[in-house]
Amino acid sequence: MKVQVNQESFWGRYMEVVRTSMLPYQWEALNDRIADAEPSGCIHNFRVAAGLEQGEFYGKVFQDSDLAKWLEAASYSLMYHPDPKLEAQLDEVIGLIEAAQQPDGYLDTYYIINGLDKRFTNLRDNHELYCAGHMLEAAVAHYHATGKRKLLDVMIRYVDLIYETFGPEENQLHGYPGHEEIELALMKLYDITQDPRHLALAKYFIDQRGQQPLYFAEEKNHDRPFRWEGSYGYQYHQAGLPVREQTEAEGHAVRAVYLYSGMADVARVTGDDSLLQALDTIWKNMTRRRMYITGAIGSSHWGEAFTYDYHLPNDTVYGETCAAVGLVFLARRMLMIRKRSEYADVMERALYNGVISGMTLDGKRFFYVNPLEVEPEACAKDYEHFHVKPVRQKWFGCACCPPNLARLICSLPEYMLSEDEDGTYLHLYMDSEVRTEWQGTPVSLRVETDYPWDGAVKITASPEEQKEWTLALRVPGWCRRYTIRVNGEDFRAPVECGYARITRTFSKGDTVEIVFDMPVTEVAANPLVREDAGKLAVTRGPLVYCLEEADNGAELHRVRLPEGKAADVFTVTRRPEMLGGIVALEAPARIMCDRWEELYRPAEEESFASRQLTWIPYYAWANREKGEMMVWIRR
Amino acid sequence: MKVQVNQESFWGRYMEVVRTSMLPYQWEALNDRIADAEPSGCIHNFRVAAGLEQGEFYGKVFQDSDLAKWLEAASYSLMYHPDPKLEAQLDEVIGLIEAAQQPDGYLDTYYIINGLDKRFTNLRDNHELYCAGHMLEAAVAHYHATGKRKLLDVMIRYVDLIYETFGPEENQLHGYPGHEEIELALMKLYDITQDPRHLALAKYFIDQRGQQPLYFAEEKNHDRPFRWEGSYGYQYHQAGLPVREQTEAEGHAVRAVYLYSGMADVARVTGDDSLLQALDTIWKNMTRRRMYITGAIGSSHWGEAFTYDYHLPNDTVYGETCAAVGLVFLARRMLMIRKRSEYADVMERALYNGVISGMTLDGKRFFYVNPLEVEPEACAKDYEHFHVKPVRQKWFGCACCPPNLARLICSLPEYMLSEDEDGTYLHLYMDSEVRTEWQGTPVSLRVETDYPWDGAVKITASPEEQKEWTLALRVPGWCRRYTIRVNGEDFRAPVECGYARITRTFSKGDTVEIVFDMPVTEVAANPLVREDAGKLAVTRGPLVYCLEEADNGAELHRVRLPEGKAADVFTVTRRPEMLGGIVALEAPARIMCDRWEELYRPAEEESFASRQLTWIPYYAWANREKGEMMVWIRR
Repeated sequence: MKVQVNQESFWGRYMEVVRTSMLPYQWEALNDRIADAEPSGCIHNFRVAAGLEQGEFYGKVFQDSDLAKWLEAASYSLMYHPDPKLEAQLDEVIGLIEAAQQPDGYLDTYYIINGLDKRFTNLRDNHELYCAGHMLEAAVAHYHATGKRKLLDVMIRYVDLIYETFGPEENQLHGYPGHEEIELALMKLYDITQDPRHLALAKYFIDQRGQQPLYFAEEKNHDRPFRWEGSYGYQYHQAGLPVREQTEAEGHAVRAVYLYSGMADVARVTGDDSLLQALDTIWKNMTRRRMYITGAIGSSHWGEAFTYDYHLPNDTVYGETCAAVGLVFLARRMLMIRKRSEYADVMERALYNGVISGMTLDGKRFFYVNPLEVEPEACAKDYEHFHVKPVRQKWFGCACCPPNLARLICSLPEYMLSEDEDGTYLHLYMDSEVRTEWQGTPVSLRVETDYPWDGAVKITASPEEQKEWTLALRVPGWCRRYTIRVNGEDFRAPVECGYARITRTFSKGDTVEIVFDMPVTEVAANPLVREDAGKLAVTRGPLVYCLEEADNGAELHRVRLPEGKAADVFTVTRRPEMLGGIVALEAPARIMCDRWEELYRPAEEESFASRQLTWIPYYAWANREKGEMMVWIRR
Repeated sequence: MKVQVNQESFWGRYMEVVRTSMLPYQWEALNDRIADAEPSGCIHNFRVAAGLEQGEFYGKVFQDSDLAKWLEAASYSLMYHPDPKLEAQLDEVIGLIEAAQQPDGYLDTYYIINGLDKRFTNLRDNHELYCAGHMLEAAVAHYHATGKRKLLDVMIRYVDLIYETFGPEENQLHGYPGHEEIELALMKLYDITQDPRHLALAKYFIDQRGQQPLYFAEEKNHDRPFRWEGSYGYQYHQAGLPVREQTEAEGHAVRAVYLYSGMADVARVTGDDSLLQALDTIWKNMTRRRMYITGAIGSSHWGEAFTYDYHLPNDTVYGETCAAVGLVFLARRMLMIRKRSEYADVMERALYNGVISGMTLDGKRFFYVNPLEVEPEACAKDYEHFHVKPVRQKWFGCACCPPNLARLICSLPEYMLSEDEDGTYLHLYMDSEVRTEWQGTPVSLRVETDYPWDGAVKITASPEEQKEWTLALRVPGWCRRYTIRVNGEDFRAPVECGYARITRTFSKGDTVEIVFDMPVTEVAANPLVREDAGKLAVTRGPLVYCLEEADNGAELHRVRLPEGKAADVFTVTRRPEMLGGIVALEAPARIMCDRWEELYRPAEEESFASRQLTWIPYYAWANREKGEMMVWIRR
């Protein structure tokens, strides 16, 4: 299957921004050629490890993963935009990576430079298997994009070493990574190699995690005390008990969703019901009790972690960009197990809101943390809020978010649809051209849509010859009404697991048009979410909207939503000149306009002024001057 | 002047609880005789320093101050309850303190035990002058209570040493304490000695503070990095700029109010206008923009500090008990400069709410942190809230709050009134008997009141002979209507600076009755306080009320105040059997009663059920089973 996303479309433009702005910038950063940014040291480390340079290791213990993620994203970009110069650049850096690899297959520059005697002695903290996993994902992506095996073979040699090192035998380490990632990467490898050892290794890491005696408690070579003693404990790493006994989304959010992704892959391939059941329980807990309306996850900066059910503070949230990215990874894998629209709904919620809020529209600055309410003064003066920035930052010292954004966006076409023996499922709606085969019959699908601005999607199917097939179109969870027309005629499609199934014999040029009604909708959170009590979020289609100071002035806490049904009260306006081209929403809100001197005084009736306010899509906030922002508004 | 507070009255009972429960318990704790509490090591340290025992220093670097505060409180208690056994105990421990004093006057067991060579080398962190200040306050209190000079003379010798050590001369240290306290203590000493050196030393510490070059930045012997680099800086200690240039209440709240108290004393005694102006500016900033309705101060656990104007979160507040106690110290000193009711209003606000919320009714458990909203699950599982406990704790490792409560409560009679050349001012209303002199004429005043439960105060004045005098009675800031009757006849008193002045020739047995109307009043916070937007606090007289789960069930965030005027809607009920005897308030509140499964769904009309809820005085919360609490309720 090949998906070509229209470069001018919503996602097409993001893919171009990544390809033309982020990837080149990140390459310069990896090579320490960005003047006013913190050095990366990434390429430098590989050169030292390969013996091409003298020097010290620079950066965080997981610095290698920055290069791996960039490589992965760059590989994906070749799939939608062949670029011989870039491909040559990749070949060159792959050569460097190969040169850094040790004779026995080991490949982590931190230990190659600092001393191989200590390798694999600090699984809790030192990210070797994490780096291996990312480089493995890069190798798989490169192979898929170019057909070239060099990096794949490098990584297979490393995986061989890891396979020998870890396992149940007495002479093996009975450990697993402090930061999960390698599990899902091994499953990507297994997908290509079908080598049972690769599956077995992924399974081992998942099954062994959290078994008694706890590996991280026994491991000796830690250079600092265990930070989460007395708080999260080993559930910080989801390693306090065996994964099949876990029932809640707990601990560090990125680690969590990477683990659950690995569990989903293993469960899907092995058919392991006990694993799938645990996954289902955790998925429900996470998406029904611990997830923000923007798809952000991770309520607290303490440990960048989940906290507890319905605890979703808007202003001190962590909502790491990487975590929302990981949620998309997981949601997609759930879809690979079963086609249920709820999974694609979560994918969409994160993609259109909490994922791309992580970057400016021009791809030059990034958020680590994605708040749903911002007051710049709090960010500067209250150290509860110190992790929240009101403006995005250039390349970080800990630069995991930009490359994660890049690799997700560059691979987005893969997320749009999937196929069964009898049907093609559209999970996401992107203006694109798809070339695939229906049981051997070549077919091209032209998907025309202006989603997320408009709910109309027109699919023109052109099989080379007539073919009986099913087009299954996800009905988004937010959609209350929709119409389907096939070749211009009303069509009633049965809905299964949230997918409207259009089963027919398709002829060349057949059109399927589905129009999702997209009224402005005010959304309430579950009443157990204390922080959202008495408040509503404004949404339209998949997009969550917010108020920004740039449009509406400061003191957004004074705003009260207007009375009446949102669809009647809000005006929907195309604003092509604004924020890269958006649909803005306007409504006459009420502003509590009293001002007085005293700090406390007997209550009086509040006075309200009416003012026309403008809501913009949440992902587009913080692209103008610094100021307040608010998603949940008082009703 | 001698004030005997009625033992059965509101404050009389607190004074008895302190005397009969807290002071003995604290004495046992200081002697490490409490089985299940963290050891104090206090007496132990003095014994080692005095050479009576071998051993190591135990506890925090400011451990000595625990003994000093206890001594101070115990001395005050002798003033309302003579106790030969206790007095002998004090004599004994004072003998021990004297024995620990070094030949040159130095007296800090941390350095006596750990090495005198390092004394005064770490003013930023190591609390020597802080401990000296507290021991000095104890010495002054003991002298006032017993007429005995032993501890006073010990401390004067220490002050002599400090006076030589610190000052502008080249061979002197140009420093000042990291934790302010000695300034106000030296002024207490000056009050007795009238020794100009004692005033000069207090002045020096205040004037030198924050001058360039910054002493704490230059000081070399720190054993850890400066924690507040990059956040509060030296304003954590209010030492980032000279005090006369400071305009806001900043930094660690307890340090701040102790400094401002010292500044108030020096300004009053010297008439220094520049100092007074700075104090006025800071006082206004603090009480009009940075103070909670309970009198709590210190919005953030980061640095236990002030943050910025109108930033007053209710659930993550620090509101250290010691800081509210210090606010009372400061307010009283402002009153000593000028009689303005606003100062006594702040004193009252803190005393009846944020100060005594620091202790259980039986004086056995304490709060360090005094929140205005509590959800026990958050306290346990969200590490933003880790400093907030939903139940009070026994003696702490860092035990500054209980002894501060003790010494304030034991000395409370001093706060009730003050005298001028021409009048007696009542700042607080306590059922008591006062013996004083009006320009040489002995007089006794009987103050009868059931304040804070009732607004009626009856003062029977009995001068030995007829005397022209003024009784000035504070009209509380919360009071909108009151009546005055003198000998049963209506009396119109002129009000000056918030005090109703009854000027007449008083005869023996004359009665002055003032009745303050005490309707239930819902109070709003300034609209710039975002956390209180759309919410009101229920009050009656000086008391702030709250909802507790014990009376009203959980999920207090669902509550909406009833419509209508509070005075009409709330029922006021005496509950003598409840929480030591209180007035409870009841009203039919609305509870948002919807429950549903989904996390987010399109908004619908909210459903409300009506339920009679009970409000209790805030200070009395957390004396029953653990549960939620809330002061600010949605309107």
